[in-house]
Amino acid sequence: MSRRSLHTPAPDAAALRARLDRARTAAAAADTDALLIAPGSDLRYLIGQAGGSFERLTTLVVPADGTPALVVPKLEAPGYADVPTDELGVDLLTWVDGDDPYKLVADRLGKAGRVAVSDFTPALHVLALRAALGEAEQTLAGPVVRELRMRKDAAEIASLRDAGAAIDRVHARVHEWLRAGRTEAEVGADIAAAIVEEGHVQADFVIVGSGPNGASPHHDVSDRVINQGDVVVVDIGGPLPAGYNSDSTRTYAVGEPRDADVAETYAVLQRAQAASVAAVKPGVTAEQVDAAARDVITEAGFGEYFIHRTGHGIGLDVHEEPYIIAGNTLPLEPGMAFSVEPGIYQPGRWGARIEDIVIVTADGVESVNNRPHELVVLDA
Amino acid sequence: MSRRSLHTPAPDAAALRARLDRARTAAAAADTDALLIAPGSDLRYLIGQAGGSFERLTTLVVPADGTPALVVPKLEAPGYADVPTDELGVDLLTWVDGDDPYKLVADRLGKAGRVAVSDFTPALHVLALRAALGEAEQTLAGPVVRELRMRKDAAEIASLRDAGAAIDRVHARVHEWLRAGRTEAEVGADIAAAIVEEGHVQADFVIVGSGPNGASPHHDVSDRVINQGDVVVVDIGGPLPAGYNSDSTRTYAVGEPRDADVAETYAVLQRAQAASVAAVKPGVTAEQVDAAARDVITEAGFGEYFIHRTGHGIGLDVHEEPYIIAGNTLPLEPGMAFSVEPGIYQPGRWGARIEDIVIVTADGVESVNNRPHELVVLDA
Repeated sequence: MSRRSLHTPAPDAAALRARLDRARTAAAAADTDALLIAPGSDLRYLIGQAGGSFERLTTLVVPADGTPALVVPKLEAPGYADVPTDELGVDLLTWVDGDDPYKLVADRLGKAGRVAVSDFTPALHVLALRAALGEAEQTLAGPVVRELRMRKDAAEIASLRDAGAAIDRVHARVHEWLRAGRTEAEVGADIAAAIVEEGHVQADFVIVGSGPNGASPHHDVSDRVINQGDVVVVDIGGPLPAGYNSDSTRTYAVGEPRDADVAETYAVLQRAQAASVAAVKPGVTAEQVDAAARDVITEAGFGEYFIHRTGHGIGLDVHEEPYIIAGNTLPLEPGMAFSVEPGIYQPGRWGARIEDIVIVTADGVESVNNRPHELVVLDA
Repeated sequence: MSRRSLHTPAPDAAALRARLDRARTAAAAADTDALLIAPGSDLRYLIGQAGGSFERLTTLVVPADGTPALVVPKLEAPGYADVPTDELGVDLLTWVDGDDPYKLVADRLGKAGRVAVSDFTPALHVLALRAALGEAEQTLAGPVVRELRMRKDAAEIASLRDAGAAIDRVHARVHEWLRAGRTEAEVGADIAAAIVEEGHVQADFVIVGSGPNGASPHHDVSDRVINQGDVVVVDIGGPLPAGYNSDSTRTYAVGEPRDADVAETYAVLQRAQAASVAAVKPGVTAEQVDAAARDVITEAGFGEYFIHRTGHGIGLDVHEEPYIIAGNTLPLEPGMAFSVEPGIYQPGRWGARIEDIVIVTADGVESVNNRPHELVVLDA
């Protein structure tokens, strides 16, 4: 009847209240009368609980000027019992089947010129809110909320360090499972179990891309049997109980690599990844970090085989701002956290990627992942 | 880098092609020029694969008149390699970072009067599609797609039977774990493991509502220690590899129930659930099935303690059409599948619910859950 939700300690009420205040200020600065935040990571960031997204409307109404309100189906209200609404200064408004929750939101807001919905609000609610809010312009809350979320505070950084250490422990154990004769899926299942054993709530993604499958960046696992000499991309992660995610890639070889070009190509990748991390400091732009990796790879003649951006922000979501990509002129600031994960993909043959999560510090960079960057040659 | 996707056998191409054809016919009948289907269960229903929802646009364009197209980021295209696009008559359109995927959709559609987005399309894409499609009215695809999805074919019914049998096997084992002195969370973890052992891909929800927690229908688990004499609501389910979900509730007592009113109240609930199932046959309306349960409970004086609808449709989603609720005058048809799950909730004391998934047959009803309906009194 319900969906799984996480039972994890929330940030304290004072920290959440400060976030809500900053959200209101940011909304006002964006000429937005209110933010409507659906269940998900934005909601967890603001009230400490992600909630669950159902066909019934749940939304946190954050007016630029006025008291926030959490609108929840009465049936689902017990799931929000841990939210310290009083200390947050948030009104709890419940509704029952037969009520019109969209009208409830509209009545709460009164006359509004511009109302922003969170980026992952389901269309079902987006369209109904648009109709209920009549004349109001409907925009996205993402650009407002991301300004807050992409600058991590000390507690968030501590959580990302925990996540990095946890996934490093899993990479340190990959040699236990990855060998010739097993399928990617079998290896992936063992890794997934270890991800949980090492403290994650769940294994959110497990990529075991062996041989030609390693050349597909979003491959996950398959029934392909791993062969001696295969190069294998292992990209893994998931959320810790505090909600912050790990995400780290290392590239392995099962015995000495079969293809003669692996060592030389991998050395280029390793230089590219190091150059990109070395470029990270306050004031440098996201696209400069991308270019630092891309230039190394392009100059070595592999530019056409690096087919994705260099990285993505990470926090309560695995993918969030800032994106490390050409065209993103955002200057980095202390507290920003993102992946640096260049790859070189030889279609039909093999691929390699190195990925660390890094955090911008006051004068440089800290990596939360600290496994060696060399190609890991395992016993076959 | 990626998110987990399921590797499960898809329906055959002929069945999928027939569904796509029916979707186009239904769109035309709804005066809709095209459906835009985001990753999720609607996409899985139409092309056999749910995909993953990311910040990059993936959408299946289903024009009422013309060739469907699957628009996918090139990076994620390998994840759709198993989709038999040729046999389905679907064009594959990939795009890379820097392209405008919304314009790609708009160009593909040309001039359109009304375009429907699937109900769980993220706002991020809903608003960008609206802008790209200019004059076109934006509506929801749910009312079109649900007309197809709520009438299950023989293969879908077989999958629902498999799911029902799998969760019945878990309920048959609850006595192994549910006893006094353990927390709901401990019991829930054991049940979750068993849900996977019995063939589910994952445990999507595990409600163990003991004592007063049983009076909260959407409670999941807590650190409450189960006491002798507690009544415990156990509502569990998840998807099988074919994608179809289980969902079944039984109510247990840990030793003889402490509260003197349990036996009599539970007998009312059992009669209500049986009356509701007995009411199911073609031509009866959804609200009549709701009323059949509700009338029994109300006449016994417990109406105010039955605080939710009687049921929800089930299939590739745990909650889908048809909803068994007052006001839903939909006449039932063979192949419709839904839960019948009345409950009686005594605030602060205890609750009880009985839930089976049933399928409308040519002349009546089939239940896919077949565990006994009596209160299950366990050794404390």
